Amino acid sequence: MPVSATKVSLVGAGPGDPELLTLKAHRLIRSADVMLHDDLVPAPILALAGARAEVANVGKRCGAKGITQAEINQRMIDAARGGLRVVRLHGGDPVIYGRLAEEIDALETAGVPFEVVPGVTAGSAAAAALGVSLTDRRKSSRVVIVSGHRATKSAPFDKTEWKEVAREDATLVVYMPGNNFGPLRDELLAAGLSGDIPAAIVSQAATPTQRHYTASLATLCDLPHVDAPAVLLIGRALDRASRKSLDATLALEEAETILSSL
Amino acid sequence: MPVSATKVSLVGAGPGDPELLTLKAHRLIRSADVMLHDDLVPAPILALAGARAEVANVGKRCGAKGITQAEINQRMIDAARGGLRVVRLHGGDPVIYGRLAEEIDALETAGVPFEVVPGVTAGSAAAAALGVSLTDRRKSSRVVIVSGHRATKSAPFDKTEWKEVAREDATLVVYMPGNNFGPLRDELLAAGLSGDIPAAIVSQAATPTQRHYTASLATLCDLPHVDAPAVLLIGRALDRASRKSLDATLALEEAETILSSL
Repeated sequence: MPVSATKVSLVGAGPGDPELLTLKAHRLIRSADVMLHDDLVPAPILALAGARAEVANVGKRCGAKGITQAEINQRMIDAARGGLRVVRLHGGDPVIYGRLAEEIDALETAGVPFEVVPGVTAGSAAAAALGVSLTDRRKSSRVVIVSGHRATKSAPFDKTEWKEVAREDATLVVYMPGNNFGPLRDELLAAGLSGDIPAAIVSQAATPTQRHYTASLATLCDLPHVDAPAVLLIGRALDRASRKSLDATLALEEAETILSSL
Repeated sequence: MPVSATKVSLVGAGPGDPELLTLKAHRLIRSADVMLHDDLVPAPILALAGARAEVANVGKRCGAKGITQAEINQRMIDAARGGLRVVRLHGGDPVIYGRLAEEIDALETAGVPFEVVPGVTAGSAAAAALGVSLTDRRKSSRVVIVSGHRATKSAPFDKTEWKEVAREDATLVVYMPGNNFGPLRDELLAAGLSGDIPAAIVSQAATPTQRHYTASLATLCDLPHVDAPAVLLIGRALDRASRKSLDATLALEEAETILSSL
């Protein structure tokens, strides 16, 4: 190793609710000297950092203008070599749709030790918000996690991609689904899925502004446009979510959630 | 609702490390009157329950002999109707390969309110243990979670199933993978995947007895038999795990883990 350095902690902040932080994430955040965080990490979690900690938004949207992944990597490396305790705080679970792999490559190349602290991912929080499981031994034996945005340059979304995941016994979990569900609906129906398969979109799961809406594959385009971050779920495991949408109890809870967020 | 009842909390205990509990799971466990837990939840987590709490193993293997899901459901319902705070503690994330869906159905039918508290799932803990991400925008754009055991009676594992998940840009995460990887290897190779795609098995992730071994798709059967629970991962996102297996630093960490578990 070229230079001795402190261990960098690559940490999942969970879906939003500070209570869905792991105990380990909570401890590391409180003791960090430098915390570099994504846009998606909400203020109540950032507020857990110590008063003397340097807290910086390195997110692509609202953070430092034009910051590159290489610059984020270098900032972690420099701080760790300076003996500082660095927490790189990812929204959700860092092993799912973060830039974790690139950060690990940079740290390993620089000889800086690191640890990965997994978190609760948004798809799980969305299912929990709907009061459903992603798997169900009676209906759904697998979970397919995909991103609505192009995740790799080499594999843009195309019809083949959706056709392969079109199974009656799978739950499809789409991160960053966007708002244009027509092509997805058409391709899944063309691949042979039934129009009555339940679907739901959950916006800002596990936050005070959480909202969810249910539909079916056939009526996917009736889902309203919602605020990001959102997760779209499609599959028979969501049967119960559709029934719950008719439940007055849940409607009341939703109203309370809205009131408490005003 | 037929009878008023306290809210049942259906809670994920995470992969094993008590520090990977969420703050919410930790709070609920400490204040539970009745805690019904899976086999897989380790003793240090069970020990967090209050001294007066009733703690019962309702797991299928080591728990109450012959306990049925219907009996577990009834026990939750009875306790909640008796005004007790019930925590149903699932290993890992309750929305992935628990019996959560059946428990929710029973609670809803009985008119007992409930909440789902998501947790860190074993697949994420396995990736974290390997120091890799499950997705990588350069290599892997999706995650496919499957179970090596038959998860549904209507959809037994067959060749078609593996063929559909055989993509160079996917990470395959197999829960309960068993020990017989020959058929899986043959089918993925026959479906066109390269033999050099990295693979790894992680046993008892996020516990003091955690072990991991790396191979490639072609050499999948060289992986040693490991203790359950285990997770098998296959995909280009694991490239770094293979390189790490040659790293003396990691070998040392492994040795320390073994020593500390004696």
